[in-house]
Amino acid sequence: MTRGGALPAVLAVDSGGSGLRAVLAVRGEPFGAPLASKEPVRTGPRGIDAGHLLEQLLPMARRLMAAAGVDGLGAVAVGAAGLATLGAELRAELPSALKRELGVRRLALAADAVTAYAGALGHQPGAVIAAGTGMIAIGTDLTSWRRADGWGHLLGDCGGGAWIGRAGLEAALRAFDGRRGGSTALLERAEGMFGPVSDLPGKLYPRTDRPAVLASFAPEVAACAGRDPVAADILRAAARHMAESAAAVCPADGEAQVAVTGGLFKMGDALLAPLGEELAEQLPHARRVPAAGDPVDGALRIAVDLANDELALPRDQRMLYVVTEKTD
Amino acid sequence: MTRGGALPAVLAVDSGGSGLRAVLAVRGEPFGAPLASKEPVRTGPRGIDAGHLLEQLLPMARRLMAAAGVDGLGAVAVGAAGLATLGAELRAELPSALKRELGVRRLALAADAVTAYAGALGHQPGAVIAAGTGMIAIGTDLTSWRRADGWGHLLGDCGGGAWIGRAGLEAALRAFDGRRGGSTALLERAEGMFGPVSDLPGKLYPRTDRPAVLASFAPEVAACAGRDPVAADILRAAARHMAESAAAVCPADGEAQVAVTGGLFKMGDALLAPLGEELAEQLPHARRVPAAGDPVDGALRIAVDLANDELALPRDQRMLYVVTEKTD
Repeated sequence: MTRGGALPAVLAVDSGGSGLRAVLAVRGEPFGAPLASKEPVRTGPRGIDAGHLLEQLLPMARRLMAAAGVDGLGAVAVGAAGLATLGAELRAELPSALKRELGVRRLALAADAVTAYAGALGHQPGAVIAAGTGMIAIGTDLTSWRRADGWGHLLGDCGGGAWIGRAGLEAALRAFDGRRGGSTALLERAEGMFGPVSDLPGKLYPRTDRPAVLASFAPEVAACAGRDPVAADILRAAARHMAESAAAVCPADGEAQVAVTGGLFKMGDALLAPLGEELAEQLPHARRVPAAGDPVDGALRIAVDLANDELALPRDQRMLYVVTEKTD
Repeated sequence: MTRGGALPAVLAVDSGGSGLRAVLAVRGEPFGAPLASKEPVRTGPRGIDAGHLLEQLLPMARRLMAAAGVDGLGAVAVGAAGLATLGAELRAELPSALKRELGVRRLALAADAVTAYAGALGHQPGAVIAAGTGMIAIGTDLTSWRRADGWGHLLGDCGGGAWIGRAGLEAALRAFDGRRGGSTALLERAEGMFGPVSDLPGKLYPRTDRPAVLASFAPEVAACAGRDPVAADILRAAARHMAESAAAVCPADGEAQVAVTGGLFKMGDALLAPLGEELAEQLPHARRVPAAGDPVDGALRIAVDLANDELALPRDQRMLYVVTEKTD
């Protein structure tokens, strides 16, 4: 499979808001520590900047290959945030560039939701809720992909970190104003975190990372949920929204599984308990399972399966774009 | 009252997101057409830029005074968006500058919510809901001001134009995804207005006028409300939020009146009918009255009352800041 024919190594890459991570696997097992850049790949007028991604990726790949003593890659899988809508340049330029620079003949470009799915459920049919600052649900019957939400903090991402934090801050300001639906517990938390709330608009609106600022308040909502009914209602509504998205993408029949993945679920039972109830109500046929791994594990799984001609997940230009070239 | 002693003229100014408007009144009646600039007054690191406001205002004031044949002003009232939080430089510089340049000895600096109130209810106690892209409620018992919401499109402005439009677009995208709570009628409207909704995030998020883009969809929600229950529910929720804000600021006893003002109410009964019901439920003691006038009328009312020593509205540094100097 590899040019040297010695070791069936693959490379898995995750490109997201916090930078690029790359992992090499030999015989299906990660080899050594992953490498990470701290700089997110730029998005330009033509979408995700292929040149900027390669600038970061190629030196990492060469270092990982040298450390493992491999001289070829059976496959590369790149998971990238924004691929579905901003991936045209990656699709156009990565296959030839990776072939030229690293001899890669099998390449998968996957939306970050797809690597999240593959990491959580492998190639089982079902639905995965991926939630951090944002929120998206992705599902497949192994014939095609479906996605729901993931529209960003103004149009959706309902139930994600920014959504929960925003709702919590609104409840804090309702208490400040004396409006219905306010929470003095959340007002105290907001003042503790941001200072006097009358200054909050001036602190939030000029920032370019507004969704992250909003999401930073989500753990405070979770911390209040045990004793504050307003905070508990926010998390219940978040859980309902997430389950609605999962229900929209989950196969209706068969052996559907459902899993959750992403940093938002670190808040634990305050969110997971109502989410379990909402999933049981809205997706009674789907079996709830723990996520097997994270998006890097998912990219690795895709790369290994692609190298072994065993990729069972549906191919699709926007979600999982695969370029293969027959080896001699 | 005026330096010439001939005509008790006053000047009213409204500074907002679409620029500056100035009206001269003689004997309490507007004289000639108002003058308007198209450029909003800049906000700098020290808040609303007093120099930029004066650059626009002084030539307008001189033109209006020359046209009316007056050589002095009994009072000036300036209503300014953002005064409460961004008005420090205006409070520091406008009194001396207007005295030096125009001989002004009585000046009122009012938050735009206060001119909206004065325009709608004059000096009656009560509450006013002012809604356009944003939403704020302001109320007074004639002793002090109370305000509720007006926190901007991410933290509140619940029920305003951006809030309604955002909720409508979320419902459109729910229909697109096949999620619960979707509206195919709103999806059609969204596609008619913005094109394929899959491109909507790329069109919305890079803009700097995101609240205005969201608010531009509010009339489409109103247009669907007669036959689409999701759209009707959005307007009902908007009405409930607005009434909640009004209830938080309206005096609980006495002869409280409640009025609505602002461009959002051009959408008519689709919003006004549920708002009437919510006000009746949440503020049963307040008498609903039509707004007597708009914020420019309110600034004019404040200027005339100030010139005549009859200003009955409560003074307050952030809401209605008044500087008077005894005339000889």
